[in-house]
Amino acid sequence: MPTYTAPTRDLQFVMHDLLKVSTADITGYNELEPEFTAAVLDEAGKLATEVLAPLNAVGDTQGCMLENGVVRTPEGFKQAYDQMKTGGWMGLDCDPEYGGQGMPYVLNTAVGEIFVSANMAFNMYQGLTHGAYSAIHTHGTDDQKATYLPKMVTGDWSGTMNLTEPHCGTDLGMMRTKAEPQADGSYKITGQKIFISAGEHDLTDNIIHLVLAKAPGGGEGTKGISLFIVPKFMVNADGTLGDRNTVTCGNLEEKMGIHGNATCVMNYDGATGFLLGDLHKGMRAMFTMMNEARVGVGLQGYAQAEAAYQNALAYARDRLQGRDVNGTKNPDGPADPIIVHPDVRRMLMDQKSFVEGARALTLWGAHLIDRSHRSGDADAEGLISLLTPVIKGFQTDKGFEMAVSAQQVFGGHGYIEENGMSQFVRDARITQIYEGANGIQALDLVGRKLAQDGGKHAMAFFEMVKTFIKENDSNAALKQGFLDPLKQASKDLQAAAMYFMQNGMKNPDNALAGANDFMHLFGHVCMGLMWARMAAAAQAALDGGASDTDFYETKIATGRYYMARHLPATTMHLARIQSGADTVMALDAASF
Amino acid sequence: MPTYTAPTRDLQFVMHDLLKVSTADITGYNELEPEFTAAVLDEAGKLATEVLAPLNAVGDTQGCMLENGVVRTPEGFKQAYDQMKTGGWMGLDCDPEYGGQGMPYVLNTAVGEIFVSANMAFNMYQGLTHGAYSAIHTHGTDDQKATYLPKMVTGDWSGTMNLTEPHCGTDLGMMRTKAEPQADGSYKITGQKIFISAGEHDLTDNIIHLVLAKAPGGGEGTKGISLFIVPKFMVNADGTLGDRNTVTCGNLEEKMGIHGNATCVMNYDGATGFLLGDLHKGMRAMFTMMNEARVGVGLQGYAQAEAAYQNALAYARDRLQGRDVNGTKNPDGPADPIIVHPDVRRMLMDQKSFVEGARALTLWGAHLIDRSHRSGDADAEGLISLLTPVIKGFQTDKGFEMAVSAQQVFGGHGYIEENGMSQFVRDARITQIYEGANGIQALDLVGRKLAQDGGKHAMAFFEMVKTFIKENDSNAALKQGFLDPLKQASKDLQAAAMYFMQNGMKNPDNALAGANDFMHLFGHVCMGLMWARMAAAAQAALDGGASDTDFYETKIATGRYYMARHLPATTMHLARIQSGADTVMALDAASF
Repeated sequence: MPTYTAPTRDLQFVMHDLLKVSTADITGYNELEPEFTAAVLDEAGKLATEVLAPLNAVGDTQGCMLENGVVRTPEGFKQAYDQMKTGGWMGLDCDPEYGGQGMPYVLNTAVGEIFVSANMAFNMYQGLTHGAYSAIHTHGTDDQKATYLPKMVTGDWSGTMNLTEPHCGTDLGMMRTKAEPQADGSYKITGQKIFISAGEHDLTDNIIHLVLAKAPGGGEGTKGISLFIVPKFMVNADGTLGDRNTVTCGNLEEKMGIHGNATCVMNYDGATGFLLGDLHKGMRAMFTMMNEARVGVGLQGYAQAEAAYQNALAYARDRLQGRDVNGTKNPDGPADPIIVHPDVRRMLMDQKSFVEGARALTLWGAHLIDRSHRSGDADAEGLISLLTPVIKGFQTDKGFEMAVSAQQVFGGHGYIEENGMSQFVRDARITQIYEGANGIQALDLVGRKLAQDGGKHAMAFFEMVKTFIKENDSNAALKQGFLDPLKQASKDLQAAAMYFMQNGMKNPDNALAGANDFMHLFGHVCMGLMWARMAAAAQAALDGGASDTDFYETKIATGRYYMARHLPATTMHLARIQSGADTVMALDAASF
Repeated sequence: MPTYTAPTRDLQFVMHDLLKVSTADITGYNELEPEFTAAVLDEAGKLATEVLAPLNAVGDTQGCMLENGVVRTPEGFKQAYDQMKTGGWMGLDCDPEYGGQGMPYVLNTAVGEIFVSANMAFNMYQGLTHGAYSAIHTHGTDDQKATYLPKMVTGDWSGTMNLTEPHCGTDLGMMRTKAEPQADGSYKITGQKIFISAGEHDLTDNIIHLVLAKAPGGGEGTKGISLFIVPKFMVNADGTLGDRNTVTCGNLEEKMGIHGNATCVMNYDGATGFLLGDLHKGMRAMFTMMNEARVGVGLQGYAQAEAAYQNALAYARDRLQGRDVNGTKNPDGPADPIIVHPDVRRMLMDQKSFVEGARALTLWGAHLIDRSHRSGDADAEGLISLLTPVIKGFQTDKGFEMAVSAQQVFGGHGYIEENGMSQFVRDARITQIYEGANGIQALDLVGRKLAQDGGKHAMAFFEMVKTFIKENDSNAALKQGFLDPLKQASKDLQAAAMYFMQNGMKNPDNALAGANDFMHLFGHVCMGLMWARMAAAAQAALDGGASDTDFYETKIATGRYYMARHLPATTMHLARIQSGADTVMALDAASF
């Protein structure tokens, strides 16, 4: 059975050596001293290793059960959930006014990585609650906030997001769920929602559904959509629970993975709902949840790869098979451990260099979100808005690929469910699909974010890369291994953006057909920037006489690998983009 | 639930337009007239669509059951197996002396694609029998052939390959299973084998296990290994079945996929075995089975992608979501079918262009095998030996990737087991692992096949590409879209081989660290060559006034896509290869 140990040293490196959080000029960041964050991460790590990770396979094997409308989560989930509650983990970055601890999002993200690596399906219960919390916190009335937030912050109640219907996912304009206004100001919600994660379960006393529905008078398409709060149990004025609302779980989906999380068909049968935010502005409110959720899914992508990598590494050190071509490494054993073989090394280095780069990118993203929310920095807001589809799309595509690679290290033993590598692959697969399939992320990037605010944020990103290269130009340790490939990759990215500008106007297909490649190209440049920055930070630590030289040297060597082996992909993506839409769209739909 | 229709038109195109089988100077090929092969493929297609495909999900859901040593296959498998037997499909290319139909391997391969696409787990029962048949046919005594082959050709008995043990898969030198010689010339086999596909089941009266074991006096490592025939039931002199042999199935593995096939732990407890081939030359005999099996697994890779693609295409035509950015295509519906969107198109074209290229490569490989076996052509033998790891490794890596891509077209609906796309992904995953994990294929290619016979076969391949380009240089239809990218890709491949020659001598790691990239680079060049040849064949058909112009034009357009969008990968692979082993091997095993 797989095991998991939180990579606290690496998380500390990103927060302190790279992002230097405790000295950043963001409200609340001064609390993030290395000793403090280390204590928090250690505590989270302990819970992850001892409680959550052992339940991961249990959740996969048992799955959730629906009986008479009640969903039973796998054995041990309830106890683990209660331990999470007791530890106060659910409200780590929530508003102190509602009982939260008010910690920055960057710390919440670091902690989140640990929980997600240990047990993704389990962590989704609280992850979705956090999204619903954010939407109510941002768009709710004072009364709504007072009614729902305190219980959601403690984890006593959980939350959901209800968008998808059987016939519409991406295209929400086709939505059929209806909201009929009532005399008392509430609405009656009627319709069916599908793919509702944690839609029904036995972990909490109440579930607060956020539901998109069409209220009269909003017009066609997405314009008519509003967002509603639909509690499973009505909440009395004194905060106690009242009647059961007419929302029920009609079915649980049999899925490829994340079996420990209940994916529900939810039937709203004239259920009582309360408008959240402005009437007919539901899409905007939902996007509050979605952007946060997308960074969170990008995190899931690399967090699953991390868990898979840890186990692949342990196996590669343990499994004896063949001999090192350069001379026996384990003369007393019948064979050498397979980690001696270059192709096994390649797989492990792929995984390691991806995970560490993605961790840096994600925590930097969280840091930008903090800068935006806590300091009102519009540039940071614009930049993270640009990076969100990259973090979601690129990191989940690669995260899945790396989970597959980790499984491959096990050979035939990786295909056997008992060894747990299959679960990492099956669980990781959903991250490429939900919260907007990755094709939608690419579309969001190329069709919306790239040109947002006149292309200002994209230009700022290019400028940031350029400035970094210029500022470090005299750093011989970085020049060849880091700066040169980063410069080339960034040039490729700009050439791709230029191609879109010159060819997308006359035929939008020329941009759309290259969107996926652009997202990946952008991802590699982000990773290259992160690795160059991490190498600079590691070199600075070494130059400053840091004691754990092995850690910093390993960091630099890992970065060199990524730059040498993965940045060359940018040229391929550029070539594909520049081949345009002609070959992509050449066939009639009937000719396939 | 997924459906499947055999791509008979495409198979006919490869056999007749591309390979021109009926006029090839190979024994038995003159029977392969288009009308004849069409009739065979149609018949196979009918069986696949009506019987095998509907059982695919049944096999996945029910799996196999082990009770009191007896393995029960999923409902309907036995009836389907009997239909296959009645149809004579098992012996299609087997020796007429033992009841086979003596058809060329190329036709057997085309038929095999159809069966594998329809139900891979089911088809493995007969696929492994065919491998065992080949080993006995090549290495057996007349008596052994007479005893076992007739019943294997009809499918009354099945066969297995027993290599792997719990502690050794790739490194067979560590094998512990023992063979003790008996006075009557037989051996007592004792040991445990794992991952034995079809090791025990209820489809046939007898199972003929081919087992690798160590007999005394052979020395250390793989040198001491011999191959033995171990029947489940002893065979009496009159051909009737005698005593049950002491070989039993100890357990069935719970796997990620191919649930319909029984993956067994086999316990040999002093079981009676008969030496097959020469004593202590078991590895050589086993490789007879393995090379054939590896091409077969390469076929499984693209055959699963084909089945997944067919369903992705149907979904993309059916699912309404969003509007074509260039103008509504389905004005009467609430949205356009998603096939209008360029990123969906990209995914479908990726799948289609890969599958058709891989089909051509695989059937060409089968044709080379026929040329080698039926005409004793040593050059063909050398070439297919070189191409085997490419067909196995490249096609299964890409086949899996394309199954994932087809699943992605379904969005969230692809993650739900009920829709069947998950099964294609889970089933395809094993092809990258078994019959030598793809890292082993890459090693075989770079460490053995590339330099085999003084590098003669690799040179012949390069020369073949060069000659094709030269011969078609005046063909304006091919020049830009096909010949130029093929030339560039081939240049990259030769540069990579040159890099290995110059740097692999002083440090073998420089070759081994690039082996996987070389395999993929080689794969793309093979696909490029296949597509250029197919385009030339299609153009010739059009020039010759063929009536189905849409088919041939679609073929050329599909090829253009592959050349424009996938051949640029060669430059990336070359850059990775040329970065050498330094970054790959930089870390101590302890520093990970």
